[in-house]
Amino acid sequence: MRYQLYYWPEIQGRGEFIRLALEETGADYVDVARLPKRGMAAIMRLLESPAVEHPPFAPPFLKAGNTLIAQTANILFFLGPRLGLISNNESTRLWAHQLQLTIADWVAEVHDTHHPIAGSLYYEEQKREAKRRAADFRTARLPKFLDYFEQVLARNPKGSRYVLGKRISYVDLSLFQMIAGLRYAFPRAMARLEPKCPRLVALHETVAARPRIAAYLSSKRRSPFNPQDLFRHYPELDG
Amino acid sequence: MRYQLYYWPEIQGRGEFIRLALEETGADYVDVARLPKRGMAAIMRLLESPAVEHPPFAPPFLKAGNTLIAQTANILFFLGPRLGLISNNESTRLWAHQLQLTIADWVAEVHDTHHPIAGSLYYEEQKREAKRRAADFRTARLPKFLDYFEQVLARNPKGSRYVLGKRISYVDLSLFQMIAGLRYAFPRAMARLEPKCPRLVALHETVAARPRIAAYLSSKRRSPFNPQDLFRHYPELDG
Repeated sequence: MRYQLYYWPEIQGRGEFIRLALEETGADYVDVARLPKRGMAAIMRLLESPAVEHPPFAPPFLKAGNTLIAQTANILFFLGPRLGLISNNESTRLWAHQLQLTIADWVAEVHDTHHPIAGSLYYEEQKREAKRRAADFRTARLPKFLDYFEQVLARNPKGSRYVLGKRISYVDLSLFQMIAGLRYAFPRAMARLEPKCPRLVALHETVAARPRIAAYLSSKRRSPFNPQDLFRHYPELDG
Repeated sequence: MRYQLYYWPEIQGRGEFIRLALEETGADYVDVARLPKRGMAAIMRLLESPAVEHPPFAPPFLKAGNTLIAQTANILFFLGPRLGLISNNESTRLWAHQLQLTIADWVAEVHDTHHPIAGSLYYEEQKREAKRRAADFRTARLPKFLDYFEQVLARNPKGSRYVLGKRISYVDLSLFQMIAGLRYAFPRAMARLEPKCPRLVALHETVAARPRIAAYLSSKRRSPFNPQDLFRHYPELDG
């Protein structure tokens, strides 16, 4: 099965959570909008064509054979057992999905630190509001999310390196991405908070050291963090 | 199976999407925090107890036997086939879930019209920012979401009354709740936009007329819309 990922070609964004799952498992996939002859037009065509039976609201979306599926967490739910990134047990899948949806909420809050008013406006047009929202994020929401996932890891049996135990799942890859992105966007806040979540920090290191992830991170396929992306570094938002 | 729903007792909020599914199917359930001897303490205990293996990040959550499950869309994904609100076909379930996750994004944007800076602050402390965010919501985001779901309905075979065809699903119940809530919160904006989404408006009427939903809406179990809830009516945010 060759998977076709549709996502904005020049950013990590929400698509990165899918890319990490495909990369970790050495899956056969194409990043469609990065193909020279396809580009963003391929995304727009699927978003706008009335012939699409199950239209996505927005990227990312994935084509797998005749299946077209959207919403990041839903795509990972679908891919998980197919890529061997989770067992097929219903209870395990629902628990992982619950965690992934909490990560999705976290991602939306990260985005809104720099775009609290409208995604269609420039950051510079909502800078004052961003400063207020980011202050709440740094002092209340960020510690709450970090603490939650630290507690989830702490409740695992001893010797579990990953969220679901001894085997890596897509949730671990997503938590790696959260820590990496937050370190880029909020280096001061993270330096202050990381000592309180050693298990999450260790998980980030464990994932980063996995051979395929390490190879991916040093490849051209990994977009560098940048200030047009989901995670943005604006020193004035970092306190 | 007696389901136990854990949600804030005095608001509709995100819990209402679960309540509607339970009510439509005549399921045996208790709204735990509304029980005189349980109340909000029952919610807090489950959120804070280190003995809970799969802790929720926030309400709503549901107990079904030994299963504890959180995240609104995840709960509906779990309940759907069990309540007969969707078939067990994987492709159908993923499509419905994709739509439900898009509704979840929409709900978060509705919430942020009155709380663009922080959920922990009063509306009055973020009124100026709310006005800006609500203006973008009314003129860009709300029409985009309405148009998306109108298109989804328009692509169904003729004679389909519901999102998935001839049989009601939990997605229809959630879309009913969106239209009802948006009419309460943004009556002027909705009066302007509803002529452009006749299928959604008809779906709202169809769901409201279903016997169990009609009985529920006129019962005491349905909290009235109110300005402490997810959908809030502030005339200054309605343009």
